[in-house]
Amino acid sequence: MMNDTFLKACRGEKTSYTPIWMMRQAGRYLPEYQKVRGKVTFLELCKSPELCVEVSLQPVDILGVDAAILFSDILIPMEAMGAPLTFSEGHGPIFPEPIRNQAALDRLIVPDPDVHTGFVMETIRLLRKELKVPLIGFSGAPFTLATYLIEGGSSKVFWETKKMMFTQPELFHNIMEKITECTSLYLQAQAKAGAQALQIFDSWVGVLAPCDFKEFALPYVQRIISDLQDTGLPIIYFANNGATLVDLSVQSGADVLGLDWRINIGDAIKKVGNKAVQGNIDPFALMLPKDKLRQRIQNLLDGAKDAHGHIFNLGHGIHQFTPPDQAKIAIDAVHELSAR
Amino acid sequence: MMNDTFLKACRGEKTSYTPIWMMRQAGRYLPEYQKVRGKVTFLELCKSPELCVEVSLQPVDILGVDAAILFSDILIPMEAMGAPLTFSEGHGPIFPEPIRNQAALDRLIVPDPDVHTGFVMETIRLLRKELKVPLIGFSGAPFTLATYLIEGGSSKVFWETKKMMFTQPELFHNIMEKITECTSLYLQAQAKAGAQALQIFDSWVGVLAPCDFKEFALPYVQRIISDLQDTGLPIIYFANNGATLVDLSVQSGADVLGLDWRINIGDAIKKVGNKAVQGNIDPFALMLPKDKLRQRIQNLLDGAKDAHGHIFNLGHGIHQFTPPDQAKIAIDAVHELSAR
Repeated sequence: MMNDTFLKACRGEKTSYTPIWMMRQAGRYLPEYQKVRGKVTFLELCKSPELCVEVSLQPVDILGVDAAILFSDILIPMEAMGAPLTFSEGHGPIFPEPIRNQAALDRLIVPDPDVHTGFVMETIRLLRKELKVPLIGFSGAPFTLATYLIEGGSSKVFWETKKMMFTQPELFHNIMEKITECTSLYLQAQAKAGAQALQIFDSWVGVLAPCDFKEFALPYVQRIISDLQDTGLPIIYFANNGATLVDLSVQSGADVLGLDWRINIGDAIKKVGNKAVQGNIDPFALMLPKDKLRQRIQNLLDGAKDAHGHIFNLGHGIHQFTPPDQAKIAIDAVHELSAR
Repeated sequence: MMNDTFLKACRGEKTSYTPIWMMRQAGRYLPEYQKVRGKVTFLELCKSPELCVEVSLQPVDILGVDAAILFSDILIPMEAMGAPLTFSEGHGPIFPEPIRNQAALDRLIVPDPDVHTGFVMETIRLLRKELKVPLIGFSGAPFTLATYLIEGGSSKVFWETKKMMFTQPELFHNIMEKITECTSLYLQAQAKAGAQALQIFDSWVGVLAPCDFKEFALPYVQRIISDLQDTGLPIIYFANNGATLVDLSVQSGADVLGLDWRINIGDAIKKVGNKAVQGNIDPFALMLPKDKLRQRIQNLLDGAKDAHGHIFNLGHGIHQFTPPDQAKIAIDAVHELSAR
């Protein structure tokens, strides 16, 4: 018996309660995850289907979320393009050879996702055999992926990325084109392998002014989502810190818009028309005492009452120091308080 | 002869062109600043009125902006409260003794601004003798200042701050109370010394959900601005990354709302009623080629045509690698394109 509440909510269909999952639910806040992670490096974990299956299942089994998400990293397909990638404790991902000219870009390939990232597809196939809730596949969005390649890692202000956008727009667009092709194929392969919904994470797009989002980022998201129409899967587009991009994000073609915690969910729902929304409690608000946490969840459910489908989620990934018990309180509260 | 275009725009009065200044206009992008800074540490610079005067005047003389801003740092009054402060190259400000309990808070004093930060008041007095444009004094906003004290420096996610807000709200409010008292006195002293407008920088408040902004941050800004009413000076409140906080920021009592670059200025103006706005071009857009930069400035001026006063500014501080010539192009373009 399959719990398909999440998929119904994605499609704007009536559900008997509001489904919930949490971004980064398979992650460091869980001791069970830490135990697996302690045995291997982060990249080894990402490339081991058996371990990826184990950690992807943990939040479903321990916390009772209504959807699983593939354990992986948005940069895996960038490494497959030929950009050497390392993860260092405390500094996050590093691309020691940033892509800042056409020659460097030309050296990157458009990988065959089944060949170069076969471990991801294998994880999906294995997970589908185990899961009683829907499985979400995912990728980064082209702008966010481009920032890592151009900056050479994560950044606070994205100077190199924006400098290229503003002074070498052709090169920037060429990078986006290649990443888009790669991402489109990558998500299509995930659909073929058995993913039942797909989320596109645009983690850093919130640094763009609306006019630049429209010119430099949105068209590439649109193309990917257009390429995925034949899969029939619900697509979630999450533009982090994108309160002022909601109007434009509606044009992405996504079925569901992910919302970070900065925007009042009711205000967002007024802008999204007949699309579903996903979000959007501040992940740090999971630290609230139980009664206040439940009250905040009630307020959020009330704010989302006119949504054309609402998937409860955090407004960003769960923080590594969050006690799992607090996550469990939130999940139970969403199920209980939203029961119709 | 005084150029009072900036002050008129703050008050919503008609001006013959749109005044412009740039956040961090006295800063590292100017070789003339680097020359001064090369001789002293950052904190020594902040505490030397003569050098502060020199660098505060540089953008007025070199670039032709319509307002000067006191050269200082928002953390100066926090150090005066008794929190040891260091600046390290590449890591920014560090408070080696973070404030995370009542005892640590009790050890902080409410300084007499004329005694403990007399160098700031002296800078203001000296600058007023030199300037032919209005002088802006400033402070950090209590929430932003509290994050530095609680985190022990700058932060990416503000875990310690929010954890305290959500699990020890009384302690958090106590910290905010004390910072508010200090900040209120500090700005009143700046007014007395001769500042002609005051800007309150809430650099990190954009990490708060609207409900938390309303509960934990806004009341303290309101109190400071209320305390400043007798000065008669225009007050600018800049809630960085605060697109979803504009409606609430209107209630701060400020005369001018600063806008970061993420929000379409026309959308913001619809929300602010009869207040003036300040902003909001992406500081990195200064890198655009001249014709595109001028077009973007024209678009922004068009978007602000219904403003009840518009002060052109960047949506954040000017980046250290911006060529001064590009800043000059923008300033000239604003003056030329807005001439009425």
